[in-house]
Amino acid sequence: MSTDLQYREDGELRHFLTVEGLKRDTLTRILDTAETFISFGEREIKKVPLLRGKTVVNLFFESSTRTRTTFEIAAKRLSADVINLNPNRLATSKGETVLDTVRNLEAMHTDLFVVRDAHSGAAYLIAQHVPPHVSIINAGDGRHAHPTQAMLDMFTIRQHRQDFENLKVAIVGDILHSRVARSQIHALNILGVPEVRVVAPRTLLPTEVERLGVQPFSDMRRGLENVDVVIMLRLQLERMQGSLISSQQEYFNLYGLTPDKLAYASPRVMVMHPGPINRGLEIASEVADGPHSLILSQVTNGIAVRMSIMALLMGGQAARRED
Amino acid sequence: MSTDLQYREDGELRHFLTVEGLKRDTLTRILDTAETFISFGEREIKKVPLLRGKTVVNLFFESSTRTRTTFEIAAKRLSADVINLNPNRLATSKGETVLDTVRNLEAMHTDLFVVRDAHSGAAYLIAQHVPPHVSIINAGDGRHAHPTQAMLDMFTIRQHRQDFENLKVAIVGDILHSRVARSQIHALNILGVPEVRVVAPRTLLPTEVERLGVQPFSDMRRGLENVDVVIMLRLQLERMQGSLISSQQEYFNLYGLTPDKLAYASPRVMVMHPGPINRGLEIASEVADGPHSLILSQVTNGIAVRMSIMALLMGGQAARRED
Amino acid sequence: MSTDLQYREDGELRHFLTVEGLKRDTLTRILDTAETFISFGEREIKKVPLLRGKTVVNLFFESSTRTRTTFEIAAKRLSADVINLNPNRLATSKGETVLDTVRNLEAMHTDLFVVRDAHSGAAYLIAQHVPPHVSIINAGDGRHAHPTQAMLDMFTIRQHRQDFENLKVAIVGDILHSRVARSQIHALNILGVPEVRVVAPRTLLPTEVERLGVQPFSDMRRGLENVDVVIMLRLQLERMQGSLISSQQEYFNLYGLTPDKLAYASPRVMVMHPGPINRGLEIASEVADGPHSLILSQVTNGIAVRMSIMALLMGGQAARRED
Repeated sequence: MSTDLQYREDGELRHFLTVEGLKRDTLTRILDTAETFISFGEREIKKVPLLRGKTVVNLFFESSTRTRTTFEIAAKRLSADVINLNPNRLATSKGETVLDTVRNLEAMHTDLFVVRDAHSGAAYLIAQHVPPHVSIINAGDGRHAHPTQAMLDMFTIRQHRQDFENLKVAIVGDILHSRVARSQIHALNILGVPEVRVVAPRTLLPTEVERLGVQPFSDMRRGLENVDVVIMLRLQLERMQGSLISSQQEYFNLYGLTPDKLAYASPRVMVMHPGPINRGLEIASEVADGPHSLILSQVTNGIAVRMSIMALLMGGQAARRED
Repeated sequence: MSTDLQYREDGELRHFLTVEGLKRDTLTRILDTAETFISFGEREIKKVPLLRGKTVVNLFFESSTRTRTTFEIAAKRLSADVINLNPNRLATSKGETVLDTVRNLEAMHTDLFVVRDAHSGAAYLIAQHVPPHVSIINAGDGRHAHPTQAMLDMFTIRQHRQDFENLKVAIVGDILHSRVARSQIHALNILGVPEVRVVAPRTLLPTEVERLGVQPFSDMRRGLENVDVVIMLRLQLERMQGSLISSQQEYFNLYGLTPDKLAYASPRVMVMHPGPINRGLEIASEVADGPHSLILSQVTNGIAVRMSIMALLMGGQAARRED
Repeated sequence: MSTDLQYREDGELRHFLTVEGLKRDTLTRILDTAETFISFGEREIKKVPLLRGKTVVNLFFESSTRTRTTFEIAAKRLSADVINLNPNRLATSKGETVLDTVRNLEAMHTDLFVVRDAHSGAAYLIAQHVPPHVSIINAGDGRHAHPTQAMLDMFTIRQHRQDFENLKVAIVGDILHSRVARSQIHALNILGVPEVRVVAPRTLLPTEVERLGVQPFSDMRRGLENVDVVIMLRLQLERMQGSLISSQQEYFNLYGLTPDKLAYASPRVMVMHPGPINRGLEIASEVADGPHSLILSQVTNGIAVRMSIMALLMGGQAARRED
C-alpha cells in the first residue's frame, strides 16, 4: 500500500495508517510529543484543550472495547467530543456502503476518525476518500497493521533504553496472523534496531519472513539468547482449534514465556505484551507479573502515544481548512 | 393531535413534536437560528456554551444509531451533557411504564428529552406529563412525524432557493408509511410552497391524500415534470416481502430515481434523500453522487437545525423554572 | 468483610464499599455534602468543576442502565470524564482475570471505579488491589450491599424528619435476597434509628434476622403499625417462579402496599422504594403516586448523594498521589 497518503505536501502527518514507509523523524516526533503527555496521567487535572471543539468518531467495525477505550480516554484528555460507533458491517453493506457511512459522519463535521476493521486496508480506503481537513487513524485492520500499538511499544522501549541502536529484540508468537508484529517490525527497522528476531513454529511464520528484515527462530531458547526486549504476542484462542498448533499445553511448553526460558535473555530484559494476556498460554503469570514485565506501562504509554498522534494530526488542521 | 402543547403561553416554543399546526414564523425562526450555527462546523472550535450544564437524554425506544448520533453531536456542540438510552419497550412494560421511566429521568433533572419510538404519539404522550421546565423533541414516532428531518430539508431548500413561494416539490416513494413525508408536507404547506406533489404507486399512497394539500402522481416522469426539488424517501426493505410491491427490480424501474427520469425535472433541480440511501433500489448511484444531489448537505444541515431547535427550546428555560 | 479498607490512615474515606462498619460521622458528612449539591439540579448551570480532569469508569459486570445512568450523571455534573464499560464476565475469565481488567484501566489513570457485579465481594476484591490514589464505589455486589442506595434513602428520610432518633422504620419485601435491605439496616442502625422492622413472609427472611438489629414481622398490618417510614423492596419477578412465593396475587394481597395497609402507619408516613417499581405487585399505583410517596425524590437525591460520595473520595486524592 502506498504510504504517501500519510503525509501532506508540507511534510506534516495527515493520516496514521501504517508504520511502513514513515520517516524515522516522524516516529521520533511522535515519541517526543508523547513524552510531553506522559506526565498528564499523574497530574491533578489531566485535560489539555488541544482538541477542544473537535469531534472524534471511534468507528469500530470490528468491536474491541479495550482498544476503543484507550482512544476514547486519549481524545477526552485532549478535550475533544467523542462519538463511539460500532456499525454492523452487514448493515452497511445493505444498500449503504462503508464509504456512505463515513461520508455521512464527515458531513457532520467529524475531524478525526479512528477506524478498526477486520478487513485489511479499511482505514486506507477511507483515508483515500476524505477531504483534506479530515484525518484517519488506523486502530487495527485485518492482518495488516496496528500502528498505534507498535508506537506505544517503541515508546516503552525508549523509556528504558537510551537509544534503539544497540538492541536485540525478539517477537514471539503467531507472527503469520499478527498485525501487531507487522507494525512492530517496521517500527523497529525504521528506528534502527540492528537485530530483530521472530520466534514461532514454522507454521506461524510467513514464508520468506527474512525479507521483512528479521531473523526467524523456531527454538525459543535460542531465539531469546541475549535479547534486550521480548515482545510476546497474544495467541488467538480461536485459531487453536485448527491444525496450526497441536495443543495449548504443547504450545505453552515450546513457546510460552516462562522464567526458565527468560533466563536465556539479557539480565535486564524487558518483557512486553499488547494484552489482554492469556495467563498460562503464551505467558506464565510469574513472568507477566514479574520484575521484567512492562505490560502495564505499555497500557499507560498507550494513552500518551495516542494523544500524541491525535495532536500531531490535528495540529495543522486549522490552516488546512482554509486551503 | 393537538399542537397547542408545543407553545408556551408567551408564544415561545416549548416542545417540538410535529410540524403540523406550527406558525410560519416559528419555522422561519428555526431556519434563521440554524443559519447562525451552520458556520460552526467550519470553525476551528465548534462548541458554544448555550446548553452548558444542561442534561439532554436521547431516549430511543426504537434504536437508530444514525439519528441518535446527529442529536448527540448537536447537543455536545451546544456543550450539554448527553446521556444515550435505548430502553427496551418490553422491559418498561413489565411493571414500570414508559412514563415511569421518563419521570425517573426527569427526577435526575433532565432538561431535554429527544424521544424516538415505533409508536405514533409517544413523544406527545411524554410531553403531556413533564413539568414546565422540561422540553421534548420528537425524533420520529411510528408513522406519525419526524419533524426535525422535515426542518433540515426545508433548511437545505432555502439554502439554494431564495424563497419557498415559487417552488414545485415532488416527494417520491412510500408516502403511506412515511413519517418523514408527512412532516415534509406540513412544512412545505406552512412555508407557502404552492405545488407539492407525491409520487408513488397507488398502494403506497394514503386514501384521500389530496386532503393533505398535495397532488398525487403514479407516473414518475409526469410527477417530476419541471419540479425544482425531488425528495426521495427511503424504501423500507422489510416491506418488500409483502404484497405492496411486486419486486425490487420493478420498483426501481418505475420509481427509482435515474438520470433519465430526473431529466424531466427543472434543469436546476435539487435531489434530496433523508438517508441512509439504498443504492440501486430507490436511487441510482449516478444521481445520489451526482451534481444535483444535496444528500450530504442535508446531513450537515441536520446538525445545525437540531442545534437550533434545542437552543430555542432551552432559551427561555431559566425564567420558567422560577414560575 | 473488613471495613478498615474504607478508611485511610488519616481517617478520610478511601473507598465506599459497604455501610457496615462506617462511623456515624462519615454518614452524616456524606449527607451534609449531598445537601450542598441538592440545589444544583435546580440551578441554570448544573456543573461544578470538582472532578475536572478526573476519569471515572463505570465498570458494570452486571448490567443496570438505571443505576449506571445515575452515576454517569453525577460524575458529569462534577465535570469528570466518564467511561461506561459493561465487560462480559465470561470474557474476562478467559485468560485475563477481573483484576487484569481493572489493572489495565488503572494503568490508563482511572481515578475512580464504580463497580457493579452479580458476585458478593467484587468491589471489595478490587479495592484490595488498587494503588492509594484510586477509589472504588460499590454500586451493588450480589446479595451483599448497595450502599449508595442506602445513603440516598437516609438522605430522603432526613429531608423530611429533623433527626433519626425517634423514628420507626419498616422495610417490606424480600429481605433475604436484598442487598438494598442489608445496607439500609446498617445505615439506620448507625444513624441511631431506635426501631427498625422487617416485614416479609418467613421464607424471605434470613435466619436469626434479629441479630441484624431488626424486629421481624410476618403480618404486614402489624409491621406497619405507627411507623414513620415504609421502605418497599422491589420483588424480583424471576424469583416468583420458584416455591418461595405461591402467587403474585397472593403476594400482593399479603405484602403489597395498598392504601388500607398504609392506614396502619403514622399519618405522616413516608413511602419509599428503590425503583423500578412493579405496579400492582409490591405496591399499588395509588400509593406509588400518592401524597406519601417519596419515590421520585429518592431519584433526585440519588444524584446528589452520589456526587457527594464521589467528591469526598476524590477530595484528598491530590495530596495522596505525592505519598
